[in-house]
Amino acid sequence: MNLRLIKIRAELKKNKLDGLLVSLPANISYLTESISRDAYLLICAEKNIYFTDSRYTEEAKGFLKDNACLEQSNGSVFKAIAKACRKLGLKNVGFEERYLAFAEFARLHQLSKNEFSLVPTHGLVEQLREIKDASEIAKIRKAVQITQATVEHISKFLHPGLKEVEVVGEIERFIRLTGARACAFDVIVASGPNSSKPHHLSGERLICDNQPVLIDLGVEYQGYKSDLTRVFFLGKINVLLRKVYNIVLKAQEKAIKLIRPNVEIAEIDKAARDYIAKCGYAGKFEHNLGHGFGLEVHESPHISAKEGSLVEAGMIFTIEPGIYLPGKFGVRIEDMILVTNKGCEVLSGAVHK
Amino acid sequence: MNLRLIKIRAELKKNKLDGLLVSLPANISYLTESISRDAYLLICAEKNIYFTDSRYTEEAKGFLKDNACLEQSNGSVFKAIAKACRKLGLKNVGFEERYLAFAEFARLHQLSKNEFSLVPTHGLVEQLREIKDASEIAKIRKAVQITQATVEHISKFLHPGLKEVEVVGEIERFIRLTGARACAFDVIVASGPNSSKPHHLSGERLICDNQPVLIDLGVEYQGYKSDLTRVFFLGKINVLLRKVYNIVLKAQEKAIKLIRPNVEIAEIDKAARDYIAKCGYAGKFEHNLGHGFGLEVHESPHISAKEGSLVEAGMIFTIEPGIYLPGKFGVRIEDMILVTNKGCEVLSGAVHK
Repeated sequence: MNLRLIKIRAELKKNKLDGLLVSLPANISYLTESISRDAYLLICAEKNIYFTDSRYTEEAKGFLKDNACLEQSNGSVFKAIAKACRKLGLKNVGFEERYLAFAEFARLHQLSKNEFSLVPTHGLVEQLREIKDASEIAKIRKAVQITQATVEHISKFLHPGLKEVEVVGEIERFIRLTGARACAFDVIVASGPNSSKPHHLSGERLICDNQPVLIDLGVEYQGYKSDLTRVFFLGKINVLLRKVYNIVLKAQEKAIKLIRPNVEIAEIDKAARDYIAKCGYAGKFEHNLGHGFGLEVHESPHISAKEGSLVEAGMIFTIEPGIYLPGKFGVRIEDMILVTNKGCEVLSGAVHK
Repeated sequence: MNLRLIKIRAELKKNKLDGLLVSLPANISYLTESISRDAYLLICAEKNIYFTDSRYTEEAKGFLKDNACLEQSNGSVFKAIAKACRKLGLKNVGFEERYLAFAEFARLHQLSKNEFSLVPTHGLVEQLREIKDASEIAKIRKAVQITQATVEHISKFLHPGLKEVEVVGEIERFIRLTGARACAFDVIVASGPNSSKPHHLSGERLICDNQPVLIDLGVEYQGYKSDLTRVFFLGKINVLLRKVYNIVLKAQEKAIKLIRPNVEIAEIDKAARDYIAKCGYAGKFEHNLGHGFGLEVHESPHISAKEGSLVEAGMIFTIEPGIYLPGKFGVRIEDMILVTNKGCEVLSGAVHK
């Protein structure tokens, strides 16, 4: 049984839980060191049980090893879970309150026949995932390398007359030649005025000369994600666009300079946000400054003004200030940061800005 | 306000609800005739309110029209929803029990201050979505056409020595040249023995001569999905593989022959399953025979042995029997079916088998 499972069992003990039903796929992947889909994982002191259906049993047999026993449960997974809880004599069974639907909770509660209680839990596994270990950092570095190669390729590929989705298609093709399994999320290619929508849905719009093209892309390598945004310019850059770009870049620099262990996360957000406001663009940067990533593209910690916790070595997160001017354009610059013992390393530092 | 919203308001009345909080993205997309992401939609007799955050407000302004008013709620969406429920004087507010997390339910219940009750609901919007209207059928036909063109392209592209993921990459590129926005799901390219895993995660394995390559792909066109599986053969087909392929094909034919309005859905599943069992492969076909698709790649109706309802004209679903022999190979053949007034149309009938 791996170290992560040993740690989560210690968390159960601390929280006076006899068992924990893990339902978030990324949490299950983390605990079983695999890429898990459509499964539930029950952790308890005596054993761990991995519930999935026939579509996945062959691959699960391959990756579970001694981390958990496999139980195939086509169409009646909650019956199987309730039965296992009773058989193991569990009394207080934690569940992930953000990742179990109300109906699933209600079904399991009904099936418990009051022989065990369901206890809402929050972030037990996610908190372990915040600090990346060496094997995770290595995979993320590889995902960053693929992303970097893709940006270099796309900067040559881009030309006026291409549709946004054609650029997405080329990215989707290229990353797989370079070792990625898939893109980490719907790639955003936002040309001209579309760039003012922070999460633009790439479409049929043609890329034009003298307009910015914002590209937000990420890849998945052995389950681990990357996330990077660059703004490309074809032709001439107008004065306002250049000014806004430089403000966003400076805001990002100010934030990154602060990153080291024991700094308040909220302070980092504030550094970038205050600078953008000082330059006259308050209200044009409304999303968080960044987010952790790893097995998920958005995970703890959230780099936001509301975050109460401190930076720790081993955290990996994005720093991505932006300024969005609807009807005109938007600029976002996003890099990936690893917190080191004394400061930080910009993992995507080699990607041209 | 569109017809779908009028219909769902009638459902509310029938279910004695003053309001309905819709949280499944596909349901929101359906009701607002858009592609909705990261939003909640509150429906009530007086008005409809669409809650989203700043990343999506610009696009939401573009598509909401008179279907709903827009409310931007960064970081405090449940406060905004509770406030709206109170302001509108709603007493019984339905929610989608399968698509609201336990924690979201608990938060909203707390914020209700017992001024309104939260009532679990199940499938109110999904049941409307089961029967496709003309505009939906037209979009699905277009998604099927793109899928067909892609299969033709890939049948020429495939050759020994390609990695599974390279084939995925070429599909991801090609579909966007042909008008799709994205793939409908992680494309499955399963070569040789990988084909026995019904939901194989495409990887680095090389495609070889004299082995099957199972490809399960789908595209999204204006929000609507397609879903198709074909098995390709490079080189020689061995005797067992040919035999199994023919059994699966015959099982599919038997199922499709039965499809017309008022037939029990379970009967269709039974026709294919019994034939496979009769040929000696009971237990080698464990998943459902098919599933509805549209705004989601898996939606009602489920074509399963347990389904109690009847086929209706306007339903669109897959028929996809399979036989999986772990360590050897798997075969699945999947087509897309539209139920007509007198029988059915195989939408993907032109795709070579």
